[in-house]
Amino acid sequence: MRVRKKKWALPYMQDHPDFAVLEPGRYRGQWASRFANPQAPIHLEIGSGKGQFIIGMAQKHPDVNYIGIDLEDSVLAMAVKKAVNAGLKNVQFVLTNGGDVADLFEKGEVQQLYLNFSDPWPKKRHTKRRLTSPNFLTSYQRILPADAPLEFKTDNRGLFEYSLVSLNNFGLQFERVNLDLHHGNAEELAANVETEYEEKFKEKGPIYKIRARFPD
Amino acid sequence: MRVRKKKWALPYMQDHPDFAVLEPGRYRGQWASRFANPQAPIHLEIGSGKGQFIIGMAQKHPDVNYIGIDLEDSVLAMAVKKAVNAGLKNVQFVLTNGGDVADLFEKGEVQQLYLNFSDPWPKKRHTKRRLTSPNFLTSYQRILPADAPLEFKTDNRGLFEYSLVSLNNFGLQFERVNLDLHHGNAEELAANVETEYEEKFKEKGPIYKIRARFPD
Repeated sequence: MRVRKKKWALPYMQDHPDFAVLEPGRYRGQWASRFANPQAPIHLEIGSGKGQFIIGMAQKHPDVNYIGIDLEDSVLAMAVKKAVNAGLKNVQFVLTNGGDVADLFEKGEVQQLYLNFSDPWPKKRHTKRRLTSPNFLTSYQRILPADAPLEFKTDNRGLFEYSLVSLNNFGLQFERVNLDLHHGNAEELAANVETEYEEKFKEKGPIYKIRARFPD
Repeated sequence: MRVRKKKWALPYMQDHPDFAVLEPGRYRGQWASRFANPQAPIHLEIGSGKGQFIIGMAQKHPDVNYIGIDLEDSVLAMAVKKAVNAGLKNVQFVLTNGGDVADLFEKGEVQQLYLNFSDPWPKKRHTKRRLTSPNFLTSYQRILPADAPLEFKTDNRGLFEYSLVSLNNFGLQFERVNLDLHHGNAEELAANVETEYEEKFKEKGPIYKIRARFPD
């Protein structure tokens, strides 16, 4: 997510080291120690943007620890600010350089993965940049235990079509596909936490969602 | 597809034994002999309805032999009539009792499978009646060679969501998913042959399509 560069972003995160991690590799293998309840499972959102989703999840599920990572300090700082203001003890934000997530987490350190409204990279020559392409799935597998769930939402038809094929070919076991999340099952909708983007665009067209599990 | 019972249906098909087969098991293992070119591969449509799709395919691909099967003599007879009038030598229609397709065909006798706008059977207790449920997929596998493609189109969101999960869990390898066939890729649209139903409903909402291959 691109926003105007915010000068306050980096200093603000430096001032809140209990919420924001700026050296991504530093806590590899020790993320549990960053949370009030180190026993709780860790769920990771890759590309957490302004943080509405992950903060909503952290509030809804106090028994889960959440980590949001993003490339852009200006959006990450907005997410950190929300977490600080809400006084949340079960959410952390990490500024990444876009490298391999396996540099950030040990195998099995993260129990579940969320991808929300990732950049669609529509051009064929940019396929490898899509967060559901095989090279990324390989990285995710390196930090997840066998059978770990991935949840992915997007409103981009091309990206979802691509992702269904890519996830299938990689061997993920589909649990549920939703082709119009906001006009479907009431129970699923009640459990849904919206991202900023989703809130804005959910009436413009369908929001697609898949939940699938990584192979053993 | 339900239509009004047609009294002429059965007698018409009996009068055209070169196009219509009323004893489904009779040609098991010998379907090639029913076609002008017995060397051509056989593609099967399950639930061929009034036949617009399969006849369109037979006209577009004279190098492929097509078989359409359906439960309802009244719709099947309409398809047979179209084939008779067009003088097609590469299409056959079979009246089935809805039993196992493995009673109709030997393993490897059919090279490709089409399912178009199958009955969605939306109630959970009717899941087993959906043509993409595991018991049906098992039947299809019994007549197809390894790696055989299945193409499935529907406008029913619930059925397509279910089918994506069911096909994935059965081990089919997805090749292409299209979530709005009539507003997508121009090349795919040019290759598409519409069913009667599709022609009528394609502007009311998205037509979903998947092409996937059976596991070895």
